[in-house]
Amino acid sequence: MRIEQRLAELGLELPEPMKLPPGVSLPFPWVRVYGDRAYVSGHGPLEADGSLAQPLGKVGAEVSEEQAYAAAGKTALAVLASLRRELDDLDRVVAWVRVFGMVGTAPGFTRTPAVVNGFSDLILRLWGDGAGRHARSAVGQAALPFDIPVEVEAEVVISAA
Amino acid sequence: MRIEQRLAELGLELPEPMKLPPGVSLPFPWVRVYGDRAYVSGHGPLEADGSLAQPLGKVGAEVSEEQAYAAAGKTALAVLASLRRELDDLDRVVAWVRVFGMVGTAPGFTRTPAVVNGFSDLILRLWGDGAGRHARSAVGQAALPFDIPVEVEAEVVISAA
Amino acid sequence: MRIEQRLAELGLELPEPMKLPPGVSLPFPWVRVYGDRAYVSGHGPLEADGSLAQPLGKVGAEVSEEQAYAAAGKTALAVLASLRRELDDLDRVVAWVRVFGMVGTAPGFTRTPAVVNGFSDLILRLWGDGAGRHARSAVGQAALPFDIPVEVEAEVVISAA
Repeated sequence: MRIEQRLAELGLELPEPMKLPPGVSLPFPWVRVYGDRAYVSGHGPLEADGSLAQPLGKVGAEVSEEQAYAAAGKTALAVLASLRRELDDLDRVVAWVRVFGMVGTAPGFTRTPAVVNGFSDLILRLWGDGAGRHARSAVGQAALPFDIPVEVEAEVVISAA
Repeated sequence: MRIEQRLAELGLELPEPMKLPPGVSLPFPWVRVYGDRAYVSGHGPLEADGSLAQPLGKVGAEVSEEQAYAAAGKTALAVLASLRRELDDLDRVVAWVRVFGMVGTAPGFTRTPAVVNGFSDLILRLWGDGAGRHARSAVGQAALPFDIPVEVEAEVVISAA
Repeated sequence: MRIEQRLAELGLELPEPMKLPPGVSLPFPWVRVYGDRAYVSGHGPLEADGSLAQPLGKVGAEVSEEQAYAAAGKTALAVLASLRRELDDLDRVVAWVRVFGMVGTAPGFTRTPAVVNGFSDLILRLWGDGAGRHARSAVGQAALPFDIPVEVEAEVVISAA
């Protein structure tokens, strides 16, 4: 339980499953495992209790770059929580291969890589430069669900249970 | 021909290949098969004859959420038509692993998951909760080709011919 | 060195590694290799010296469709330069399977496929209709890093070194 231990050393806790807003139905899993791959659905930032992390809104307007960086870190924790629920053990994630970072941007905000670094930096602290090494894009979206400022989908390689 | 039969039972028909608008050249296939994977190019909603489904425009402005949900269902049928042409038999699709749903959104429209559910719901009706289970994102784009309201790309696992 | 030779025949040179603008940190590789796959991070258009290609801005406003088509071709060269640095030999790329083209669009510009054709056309000239054949999406983003007009991420199949 190497990754769990590092999370504890960093004082980080994984959030509860996302509490869906009323009237929302999401007919898909947060993680789809097939063979040696786990495909991670788009996740947003959560508070510890699974509620949407505040502030909501566009980065560059209602949400500052610093707040968005923090939101990307919370998004990473939400992804790790889903992976732990699906895989039981985060040490089964043996390689991060693709991270697709989406930022809800106000007109004129283009520092999307600085925002998504909040995700990448945490993955690299936990998995290191080898297994944590991932291809990445970080781009601005016209809209994200629930007006979250950041959303990330990913693909990771897993070992057998 | 299990999937074909379910489509018939649901009264659903797959559309003709997309009729490209004048002056448009798309130098790529709708489906790229490699090994046990079929990579599905971004598809939009089509009418039965392969013309672009109406209405066109942004969801939340020219296109209502309900119309966009229906467009996402037509997008699923367009994807299935491409897969059938490439694979001959839709039963060769043994697992859906990734669905990336893109919605052309008017300012303020954030209910992108409700729109892309029109795609996911149909896949789940046809393939069920096992093989149909897919990781998904559903996000808002500043623009989609031809001003279509919805576009979906996907990755599926296929069995040998 | 088949691909290198075709590049030379076409009079095309691969650019230097991207010169990051001041204050920008990108904690991820341009290419992530795992098994028989190379996952290509989002790349933008570069000049030969690795500086961002001009003009910057939105397609349909500061950047014309023709300029954006050219930028997509330069984006392809930037991707090839990263792949060559990672793989040593571009002939190790035996199949292109997925190209995801993102265009920074001004309101009303929807000809995103015509822009991303600048990427696809070059890949097809170099690898041909077999190995170069790729699934593709081409969509409009609200923002791209550094205000580049085009960004492409991709997945390719590689042979052993």
